[in-house]
Amino acid sequence: MKKYTCINDINNISDIIKEAIDLKKNPFQYENIGKHKTLVMLFFNSSLRTRLSTEKAAKNLGMQVMVLNVNEAWSLEFDDGTIMEFNTTEHIKEAAMVISQYADIIAVRVFPNLINKQKDKSEIILNSFIKYASVPILNMESATAHPLQGLADAITVEELKVNKRPKVVLSWAPHPKALPHSVANSFIKTMKNLAVDLTITHPKGYELDSDITKGVHINYNQAATIENADFVYVKNWSNYTDYGNILSEDSKWMMTQEMLRNAKFMHCLPVRRNVVVEDAVLDSDNSLVIHQANNRTYAAQIVLKKIIENLD
Amino acid sequence: MKKYTCINDINNISDIIKEAIDLKKNPFQYENIGKHKTLVMLFFNSSLRTRLSTEKAAKNLGMQVMVLNVNEAWSLEFDDGTIMEFNTTEHIKEAAMVISQYADIIAVRVFPNLINKQKDKSEIILNSFIKYASVPILNMESATAHPLQGLADAITVEELKVNKRPKVVLSWAPHPKALPHSVANSFIKTMKNLAVDLTITHPKGYELDSDITKGVHINYNQAATIENADFVYVKNWSNYTDYGNILSEDSKWMMTQEMLRNAKFMHCLPVRRNVVVEDAVLDSDNSLVIHQANNRTYAAQIVLKKIIENLD
Amino acid sequence: MKKYTCINDINNISDIIKEAIDLKKNPFQYENIGKHKTLVMLFFNSSLRTRLSTEKAAKNLGMQVMVLNVNEAWSLEFDDGTIMEFNTTEHIKEAAMVISQYADIIAVRVFPNLINKQKDKSEIILNSFIKYASVPILNMESATAHPLQGLADAITVEELKVNKRPKVVLSWAPHPKALPHSVANSFIKTMKNLAVDLTITHPKGYELDSDITKGVHINYNQAATIENADFVYVKNWSNYTDYGNILSEDSKWMMTQEMLRNAKFMHCLPVRRNVVVEDAVLDSDNSLVIHQANNRTYAAQIVLKKIIENLD
Repeated sequence: MKKYTCINDINNISDIIKEAIDLKKNPFQYENIGKHKTLVMLFFNSSLRTRLSTEKAAKNLGMQVMVLNVNEAWSLEFDDGTIMEFNTTEHIKEAAMVISQYADIIAVRVFPNLINKQKDKSEIILNSFIKYASVPILNMESATAHPLQGLADAITVEELKVNKRPKVVLSWAPHPKALPHSVANSFIKTMKNLAVDLTITHPKGYELDSDITKGVHINYNQAATIENADFVYVKNWSNYTDYGNILSEDSKWMMTQEMLRNAKFMHCLPVRRNVVVEDAVLDSDNSLVIHQANNRTYAAQIVLKKIIENLD
Repeated sequence: MKKYTCINDINNISDIIKEAIDLKKNPFQYENIGKHKTLVMLFFNSSLRTRLSTEKAAKNLGMQVMVLNVNEAWSLEFDDGTIMEFNTTEHIKEAAMVISQYADIIAVRVFPNLINKQKDKSEIILNSFIKYASVPILNMESATAHPLQGLADAITVEELKVNKRPKVVLSWAPHPKALPHSVANSFIKTMKNLAVDLTITHPKGYELDSDITKGVHINYNQAATIENADFVYVKNWSNYTDYGNILSEDSKWMMTQEMLRNAKFMHCLPVRRNVVVEDAVLDSDNSLVIHQANNRTYAAQIVLKKIIENLD
Repeated sequence: MKKYTCINDINNISDIIKEAIDLKKNPFQYENIGKHKTLVMLFFNSSLRTRLSTEKAAKNLGMQVMVLNVNEAWSLEFDDGTIMEFNTTEHIKEAAMVISQYADIIAVRVFPNLINKQKDKSEIILNSFIKYASVPILNMESATAHPLQGLADAITVEELKVNKRPKVVLSWAPHPKALPHSVANSFIKTMKNLAVDLTITHPKGYELDSDITKGVHINYNQAATIENADFVYVKNWSNYTDYGNILSEDSKWMMTQEMLRNAKFMHCLPVRRNVVVEDAVLDSDNSLVIHQANNRTYAAQIVLKKIIENLD
């Protein structure tokens, strides 16, 4: 693997999932593969799971890890040809080339601003790192994608499915703050690569990027969609058409135990209790959220392993 | 040891102190005991000594360490049943269970707000970690206790005592800001477990939690109390009855060389010079503050070793 | 080496440069020399290159590294005899002595305030660490010096010089914010120790500390100075006489490809594009900035190695 910025960077997801499940049984079986290799983790935004699971994954492989909150360093410029006389102190060209000399892999987390759709969709920050860095880039959640979460979710579904072709639903949930589309996007892209029957349910007007949902069933009736589901992934996202706005906080879309019945509940976390999903669901045995979070380590670890194996 | 959140988690403090003193002679003698083990250090508040000494202790044992300033991640919710539609983004239930999967031991530092006595006394944050985490918790100073400091102080007294049963005084000092009771509490609880003659001296009205001071002499006459003392531990705490308030900044309670005479001076640091204690004391050979800070490493290291030995 | 706070701490710079170039060929050849040694890196200010390259250098030598943003800990007092009743919570005396017990080497980054010239020149913070710490101090950029950058620059010139005695120019550049003199100072001091022909060019009034520039040619005509130069180091600094002020942002002093011709371009980074230097220079093969940044690792590594070899 030359980079991992999108789920499509994986050639054969079934093989990767198998290897991740095998790694989970003995996380230290490749503890020398990362010797003399350094992962630099760059955070433009907050992180708990991603920070800890990715750092742990790298250390399980014997890598050195350096964590930098970019906002504590310099304010970066991403536009070409700018006269940098105002707030930005360093251009991404220099920053990416310089950090590449201290890193064997660079991991980047950068959220969208949810104001300028074209800018967010262009993934200017992530793509600038890809363009200017001389080492592989690992996406720790960008404006439009969260492929480590997507892979962790895929591992979880494969581990716990009972039916050969499980019924999977992605169900929109209310939220008081405008949230990115990254998790939903990566979940959809990942599920499209698995042998599952995927349906998305959300209020009218909350359609996601059609490039991503192409070929996936969309049903505006939440209850009907969830009936007989094996896995229900609940997640808020802000409006995509009326970009970044919140058109509805309709609490009827909050996931309840009554609606979920025997389906397994999935969420990427952090989750707002009794807003996105009621306590009864999170506290039941059907909740997979802790299991999913655990798989973040092995998703990151198998991806780092594949990238390391491909280094010169 | 299954956790270390209070000095009472130690069964036999004399044995622990002996082992810590032995560790100090060769800090790397157990450098393989922490192999493949991870300490996650969570800071809700500032730290210098605790951060560096605990991290160093873990690394001396061969552990991996991941440090997270929680405020850089998500704002946590601690109440049950809340509709999380306002400022908190993740419930401690999920956070503690998730972090437990990335950690073999979780260390937490969280100060009291000194506004709500019952809330502080309930140790809601620390106890929520204990309740929901599936790995042992290490207290790096909580609302009411600082047991790593207490143990370091005990090691110091044992190392440097001349008399078999030394006279130890805890002496209140003035301070411009309201400070927690944690250090005083842990010092008292620790000294009660040692063969020392302990007296507390403070202005009237500055009585500490009587559950903790039960059985300890209290004397409002500072000079008389300190006479013939072997060790004088000087520390400010805010009012406990009129909770969190400062009733007096009486500078007469500042420790001076004249009052201290030949007694050894102890303080947990950081210390405000010429407010809590005059320069002459801190700069004299009778000051043990640097020695105490050094023992923080070995206090943390022996505790981590005991916890590791008890892991499955 | 007993410390590295100034380029003059190096006895024989030619030997050091040779060893650094040798280290660069195999950065892990001394990976056991730092075993059981800890580098504590203290940041009072922002850092990207210095943070990552120095941490990497230490890890290449097998050291443990602990990074602390001092502002997240306590506010330090540097004056003697102060009654610490206001903002500062810990005196440098205690802080430096305490941290020394957790570290084998302490690295410090602290910028000048550019308001009080005498205070900045006295290097009160760096010198307080030297005075009170019981372990060697490594300067990661202080008020008046950046000797790790200076050494990296020297390595770069030695690696890439074609002439036996290259012509080197330090050329002032405009900048919207007041910047320190540290990089310029260390570059000059370093070049004085190499077999180079050094000239400084800047607008009248921008004279640097004459203690440092003594014996170096100064020419106010930028174009004439740069003609036939082999290496042109471009850097802004604020006024030294009218201390910390910006007398001119004259954009004519921005380095252009037309003026540079075939000379090699050097800068310590971060650099403001099209303010300090035009894009065409930075994007040309004559730009050495990425090469310089890479040498930061080996400058730090050889210095750390020399200090470790001198530890008891």
